[in-house]
Amino acid sequence: MTAIQQRPIGVFDSGVGGLTVVRALMERLPNENIVYFGDTARVPYGVKSRHTIELYTEQIVTYLLEHDVKALVVACNTIAAVAREKVRQLAGDMPVLDVIAAGAQAALQSTQNNHIGVIATSTTVNSNAYARAIHSQNPNTRVFSQACPLLVPLVEEGWLDHEVTRLTAREYLKPILAENVDTLVLGCTHYPLLKPLIKQEAPELKLVDSAITTAEATAEALYRSQLANPNHNGADYRFYVSDIPLRFQTIGERFLGRSLEQLEMVSLG
Amino acid sequence: MTAIQQRPIGVFDSGVGGLTVVRALMERLPNENIVYFGDTARVPYGVKSRHTIELYTEQIVTYLLEHDVKALVVACNTIAAVAREKVRQLAGDMPVLDVIAAGAQAALQSTQNNHIGVIATSTTVNSNAYARAIHSQNPNTRVFSQACPLLVPLVEEGWLDHEVTRLTAREYLKPILAENVDTLVLGCTHYPLLKPLIKQEAPELKLVDSAITTAEATAEALYRSQLANPNHNGADYRFYVSDIPLRFQTIGERFLGRSLEQLEMVSLG
Repeated sequence: MTAIQQRPIGVFDSGVGGLTVVRALMERLPNENIVYFGDTARVPYGVKSRHTIELYTEQIVTYLLEHDVKALVVACNTIAAVAREKVRQLAGDMPVLDVIAAGAQAALQSTQNNHIGVIATSTTVNSNAYARAIHSQNPNTRVFSQACPLLVPLVEEGWLDHEVTRLTAREYLKPILAENVDTLVLGCTHYPLLKPLIKQEAPELKLVDSAITTAEATAEALYRSQLANPNHNGADYRFYVSDIPLRFQTIGERFLGRSLEQLEMVSLG
Repeated sequence: MTAIQQRPIGVFDSGVGGLTVVRALMERLPNENIVYFGDTARVPYGVKSRHTIELYTEQIVTYLLEHDVKALVVACNTIAAVAREKVRQLAGDMPVLDVIAAGAQAALQSTQNNHIGVIATSTTVNSNAYARAIHSQNPNTRVFSQACPLLVPLVEEGWLDHEVTRLTAREYLKPILAENVDTLVLGCTHYPLLKPLIKQEAPELKLVDSAITTAEATAEALYRSQLANPNHNGADYRFYVSDIPLRFQTIGERFLGRSLEQLEMVSLG
């Protein structure tokens, strides 16, 4: 059969961070073929304007649609925050999942006192997207957000268990902890790599890992729309990036948790 | 007169950091008109491949040549490290100055024991450009380089005198200090803002500030080629960027040391 079920899931991010979502998808949906696009030439998006992010997003989605994907996963909080509607417009009626919707849903299920913390890039925080997604389902929830622009470079430097990272996290978390939150959304795909350190700094918090929650939401959407791949004969993974910078292989494999094969550089826009 | 002397100097960088060079040029050459281009949509270059950096550089230089510049100043260490020859090809016979040539020259004049340290982005360090520039003039000099990828985000976060920045700088400087250097080149246009902190961490070192040395080299080149502007009736400054992200005005003014007027967003490539 050449069924739609065998077509790949398209996953995209501004760079390498979305590979944490791919990793979670591989574990949750081992039959699914995946095409990943990371815009490594133009990363980071977290400091760019809405206009520029929408333009770049349109280029990426167009590219993935050419790969005949059956569903789209926005594995970048910044894109989900400012360009989700653009993705939906381009996607027609195929399922579109994103890290913010999935993270907001999981946070609402986790919180007991309705005080939720969110850490993310500056653009994601300023977009207020998590608060809007959470409030649309429960207006009585209080959301406390903190921009953490240093955490991405610290993860990429590999200082996952370093005193500098610990002090930085402590400083960023201080105002959020003061608000008595019981749940913390890791609102950037880089942050799951800091889970052990953040757990040590804030052991009482329940952490929402957007990679895992997005994989779960994708699984639900595929089963609901009868798009899940029933075949067990080994999934195919393809990785496209707009640049292959220094140390990309090393950093990518740290995020993916396995070796990064079938990697190709393509030019967009 | 519509003389060539009145035409502007073109200064460019991958982002906002080159404004430290503009600031030094304003002080050293107050008569000169300046056109600045910062590729804020695609910053940072320090983690991109040579191919991508050359492509982007060609687009920027073409844009500045359309503004009828009389000289070009490469105010970005990464571009100077990997695409200087591309700039020279495009520039014809106009003077081309760059932060690496100027910094190497100043370091050679400063050192007494011929042990020079260089801190820079990963791409600049891996290009080995400072060592080549220094060795081409004095092969007996020893150059010790250290990539410091966290210092740019720390400066942009505004943590100029923060414990986290101090610990980070201390960690990066440790291997260089162990080599008994007497001169340290600040090989990234963001680093001059960390001069006070670095001086405290390494009080015995002479620091080479590439912004100041580049302005000095530009002045020499203009006078030598009779291109300096003799008019005293107020210089004109124009700033073009490929994106105006969140907090750009604040960060830009921190680098420029004054208010940022005549700022315009343009699209390249």
